[in-house]
Amino acid sequence: MPAKLPTALLGASGYSGLELTRLLDRHPRLEKPLLLGREGNLNGAKDLAEIFPELSGNGGHPLRPLSWPELKRQRVELLFLATPHEASRSIVPEAIAQGLRVIDLSGAWRLKQAQHRAIYSFQDADTVTAAELTRKAVYGIPELNGDRIASSQLVANPGCYATSVILALAPLLHANLIDRARGIISDSKSGVSGAGKAPSSRTHFVSVADNLSAYSLFNHRHLGEMVEQLDLDDAELTFTPHLMPIPRGILSTIYVHLNRRLQPGEVESVLRDFYSGKRWIRIFSTPTLPELQFSLHSNHCDIGFCLAPDGQRLVLISCLDNLLKGAAGQAVQNMNRMYGWDEREGLQ
Amino acid sequence: MPAKLPTALLGASGYSGLELTRLLDRHPRLEKPLLLGREGNLNGAKDLAEIFPELSGNGGHPLRPLSWPELKRQRVELLFLATPHEASRSIVPEAIAQGLRVIDLSGAWRLKQAQHRAIYSFQDADTVTAAELTRKAVYGIPELNGDRIASSQLVANPGCYATSVILALAPLLHANLIDRARGIISDSKSGVSGAGKAPSSRTHFVSVADNLSAYSLFNHRHLGEMVEQLDLDDAELTFTPHLMPIPRGILSTIYVHLNRRLQPGEVESVLRDFYSGKRWIRIFSTPTLPELQFSLHSNHCDIGFCLAPDGQRLVLISCLDNLLKGAAGQAVQNMNRMYGWDEREGLQ
Amino acid sequence: MPAKLPTALLGASGYSGLELTRLLDRHPRLEKPLLLGREGNLNGAKDLAEIFPELSGNGGHPLRPLSWPELKRQRVELLFLATPHEASRSIVPEAIAQGLRVIDLSGAWRLKQAQHRAIYSFQDADTVTAAELTRKAVYGIPELNGDRIASSQLVANPGCYATSVILALAPLLHANLIDRARGIISDSKSGVSGAGKAPSSRTHFVSVADNLSAYSLFNHRHLGEMVEQLDLDDAELTFTPHLMPIPRGILSTIYVHLNRRLQPGEVESVLRDFYSGKRWIRIFSTPTLPELQFSLHSNHCDIGFCLAPDGQRLVLISCLDNLLKGAAGQAVQNMNRMYGWDEREGLQ
Amino acid sequence: MPAKLPTALLGASGYSGLELTRLLDRHPRLEKPLLLGREGNLNGAKDLAEIFPELSGNGGHPLRPLSWPELKRQRVELLFLATPHEASRSIVPEAIAQGLRVIDLSGAWRLKQAQHRAIYSFQDADTVTAAELTRKAVYGIPELNGDRIASSQLVANPGCYATSVILALAPLLHANLIDRARGIISDSKSGVSGAGKAPSSRTHFVSVADNLSAYSLFNHRHLGEMVEQLDLDDAELTFTPHLMPIPRGILSTIYVHLNRRLQPGEVESVLRDFYSGKRWIRIFSTPTLPELQFSLHSNHCDIGFCLAPDGQRLVLISCLDNLLKGAAGQAVQNMNRMYGWDEREGLQ
Repeated sequence: MPAKLPTALLGASGYSGLELTRLLDRHPRLEKPLLLGREGNLNGAKDLAEIFPELSGNGGHPLRPLSWPELKRQRVELLFLATPHEASRSIVPEAIAQGLRVIDLSGAWRLKQAQHRAIYSFQDADTVTAAELTRKAVYGIPELNGDRIASSQLVANPGCYATSVILALAPLLHANLIDRARGIISDSKSGVSGAGKAPSSRTHFVSVADNLSAYSLFNHRHLGEMVEQLDLDDAELTFTPHLMPIPRGILSTIYVHLNRRLQPGEVESVLRDFYSGKRWIRIFSTPTLPELQFSLHSNHCDIGFCLAPDGQRLVLISCLDNLLKGAAGQAVQNMNRMYGWDEREGLQ
Repeated sequence: MPAKLPTALLGASGYSGLELTRLLDRHPRLEKPLLLGREGNLNGAKDLAEIFPELSGNGGHPLRPLSWPELKRQRVELLFLATPHEASRSIVPEAIAQGLRVIDLSGAWRLKQAQHRAIYSFQDADTVTAAELTRKAVYGIPELNGDRIASSQLVANPGCYATSVILALAPLLHANLIDRARGIISDSKSGVSGAGKAPSSRTHFVSVADNLSAYSLFNHRHLGEMVEQLDLDDAELTFTPHLMPIPRGILSTIYVHLNRRLQPGEVESVLRDFYSGKRWIRIFSTPTLPELQFSLHSNHCDIGFCLAPDGQRLVLISCLDNLLKGAAGQAVQNMNRMYGWDEREGLQ
Repeated sequence: MPAKLPTALLGASGYSGLELTRLLDRHPRLEKPLLLGREGNLNGAKDLAEIFPELSGNGGHPLRPLSWPELKRQRVELLFLATPHEASRSIVPEAIAQGLRVIDLSGAWRLKQAQHRAIYSFQDADTVTAAELTRKAVYGIPELNGDRIASSQLVANPGCYATSVILALAPLLHANLIDRARGIISDSKSGVSGAGKAPSSRTHFVSVADNLSAYSLFNHRHLGEMVEQLDLDDAELTFTPHLMPIPRGILSTIYVHLNRRLQPGEVESVLRDFYSGKRWIRIFSTPTLPELQFSLHSNHCDIGFCLAPDGQRLVLISCLDNLLKGAAGQAVQNMNRMYGWDEREGLQ
Repeated sequence: MPAKLPTALLGASGYSGLELTRLLDRHPRLEKPLLLGREGNLNGAKDLAEIFPELSGNGGHPLRPLSWPELKRQRVELLFLATPHEASRSIVPEAIAQGLRVIDLSGAWRLKQAQHRAIYSFQDADTVTAAELTRKAVYGIPELNGDRIASSQLVANPGCYATSVILALAPLLHANLIDRARGIISDSKSGVSGAGKAPSSRTHFVSVADNLSAYSLFNHRHLGEMVEQLDLDDAELTFTPHLMPIPRGILSTIYVHLNRRLQPGEVESVLRDFYSGKRWIRIFSTPTLPELQFSLHSNHCDIGFCLAPDGQRLVLISCLDNLLKGAAGQAVQNMNRMYGWDEREGLQ
């Protein structure tokens, strides 16, 4: 067996960070990852189990301050960032300069077009370095951009909603079967971990339980990712996220109009052919539809569909676990691709 | 104070029936309602509190078998049915023949067009009586059909999903602002009480909790109601219901394309003007959107909206409590209209 | 009909305050209550519907700053406080001095014994006024202290857990049937609204959902109330509260050892006789036990029991809605008692 | 690497069976297990993914009818049963006669004493074979009976509640620190998967959500296991199970009276020493208590405690995942012990 890869993770104290810690812990190709915190961000915690008691008893998870010399000493090659996007904007340039490869789970480097990036109000918007990294960054959906990910130094790990919508639409758009002029709609519903770990009146149990609410209509940050990756015009895609009373999981109900009448079997073939050999995509045969629960605690993206009797109105259902295929699991899948390992390694 | 109205309710043992029992109990214009069961349907229960222990201690809720002479003896004028649609099809003809007024919460008499009724496979589809009652029945949304309800002998109380979608779309369709050719989509999400009280693998707690699932795409029974009441062609409306992990409540996210650019204020005016004076409709001003939780345990239908920056793509959000405005509350509101009472009586 | 009573409520922006607002709104003996906020505590809200959108459309709920002259001008006689206990400690002395009657939902005046009050660390602990008000305050469980409440100027509305435990134990302790030396245990479980509306990591949806946790063992603030009201020694009662993933409701499972063998019928008689004529207590007959759900959205406290085959080990189950019988509902019940009205008024 | 062990599982279609299937699938010492169904029990399903769609895409899970010759042909050595106890009673004698080793997840062989077995009303109660198997069966808690499990042919895998209570109490009882005469109480709360997969009014989502209910007081089937394994008299242990609105997990709050005053550090030492080297038990240091959530989706049993200021009243908190440490995970741990493997194999 070859030597194991030394890695580090900055930002383990959020939900995606916890999930990623667990995945990296048990990945057979990796040394135990270094867990790093930003100064003043760990409330004095010396071990991640102080923040997440569920980790205790599995061996220690010591937290250290980020230090480039220390990373060098430990021969770390790959750095994961599960930090807020502002932090990623300030840290990634140095990490790249240090020769590290980076998988960034934040939104810092996902968007190519200035009009989409505007929603983040990046403070470093105009620097040469930021522009260069933006060009360099590969959008990390392995099923779509696998070859470019393999050789990338900086992978922009996609948004959870964006992954769910892009994976469902890519096959039909690629086959040129969708009438874009009629508009595409994704009505998406997410569990609360997608809203992050910071307490707020919006994430208070009593506000969420027995509730459902739509938010960020026409201006959610993940919308730009979908439009760019699917090569759509901004007006062609309507995206409505909803917060629902479950801890994790996303289900997107996607409405398209086909530009010619199809049979269900034809739709299914397009989906299956497109994802042939991709192990983390499961296509459901009509009339069975994926349910949100099916992909929880797995790295699967489940895709199903229902075609109207008229053969032209098509509803796609796309489900995934926002913390796995929508974040930490996809990050591991990207790493597997970057190092030429089987895309299932460490994810089963 | 005038004499109180004697009423009866058949089918109190379901969720809508329980809710209706509570409402009728405290309605200031009513005598205590007679609670009736169909033979062999009550498992020997003599009082509704044996089925719903939460009713105990509020005075008795005796259950009696349905008997027309007994109804006559008690001078009952108005009969509520919270029975399955097949039962309603067989009972309503006799009730009407007995001279009773009827508010039927089932789907038995809601649909005017044979192609929509087909989904129910009514066994009496071709009888003269059934055809006559179908003509006679008034679809019971008081905000839309108030005058006809006032004089009706048979009110077909609407489906919960249908109420949610129809109330949101009626103002804009009436103002001829929607581009029907582009298609209308309602992505609706309901709590589990909408699926009824019979245990099944689909309503098992473990199947529903931490889950979300779409069902009955393109063929839900409430679709015909929406199409008929909104005067749409079948192909113009796509309706996707979802089951979500809450006990009660519906939120519909409705997508339309306007046939000309509007300002948000214009949309709001159309909605407010249409429902001017209607006390159970609440219009939300942009950017505030109704949340499912706001209308729970009330008879409100809450309607909000978000207009795209292009001024043509419009998302409507419509929320209600499926057991109240979507069933028992609307039944009481219909009764208030039938007897000329304030539409808020007994509902606050 | 006699003139309606003018009342005011300070602290409507919490969960108990919202519930109390709703109850006061529809109480037939009351004018619409004045809703008061403390300076700087309302985030600029002018109407309670800005904080709780579910209130909109029911007529306004204007919020005003607390002003004694204004209360006098409005001839307010009765002031409800749904404020934190520190605020109550500073406001009540002036309210009493102004001649108002007060029902205080906080823990400020519930405890008679200094060793129990210590847990609150009141800053005014030693003042003459505080001592006098502490003596004057009547602990507001109407089923137990009804006569003293009737003539009281200051009612200390009980804690939610305390109400649940005290009501279940009072009959058997009063009948001297419990072997105190063996110890009494209450294992109590509460919904999250009991933890208040302030966001924290503890009330974050993801922390609560799919979880259950015990807290404040041997030192919860409500323990002193139970011990004092039941006239127990501190070591005789063990109380363990738990936070469970529901918005509201409390279920207490209470373990006692009887000092002689009883039949189930004897236990039931003791309970029924003790609460004879009390309309908000429901005694369940063995083997039926109350479930938490039964009393939600009502002012009931439901009490059931199971006696071991040995006739000496007894488990009591006590359920109530922490926001109603555990807070706002009981406050209204206390008001009814203070003004000589039927204890059900405004609560059905 | 040595040859992999061929195993079979009868009863994969329940919740424990599904969980066990997943564990066996990925256990590094096993061939892919044979999944068996009883005739007429699979509704025609040929693959487990037809019953649990979440399994699809992970390779097939073919279901076959139980056939002893086929098991022999496949050289199966070890048979898991996740069947109802009646089925286990009729199948195990033949399995043992065929020379198989058996791990039975049902309650069929857990109880040694006739007065405890009576609750099951076994039809074969008096046969010689049943009596012999009852003697032969080893109660499968590896932390307590590890040596006997290692050499056992028939392991009776414990009940979920019983595991939770026995593991928490064993150290203190073993150290003779508990005053049994004062009585021991376990107030236990379980998620709904513990109630099984069959739909019933009790497991309907609307019955469980926003609810909590106690059941089977003084006569739950797991009580006998606790009494026998802890060597208690029947009257010394009171056990109250509750059904709570989560899919999985158990938390037991256990009340004991120590027979002498202790310091918290002494209690902790007793717990830690007793479970020294046991990798699936986590002891929490006071004041941190385990929460139900911490052990979900793991094989851990988490144990914490709080000692009263008087040093004698002790509350133990014990948490586990009822489908893992409470069922399928413990079954795998038992297998690891039976075959001399590390007890963590296949469980991390």
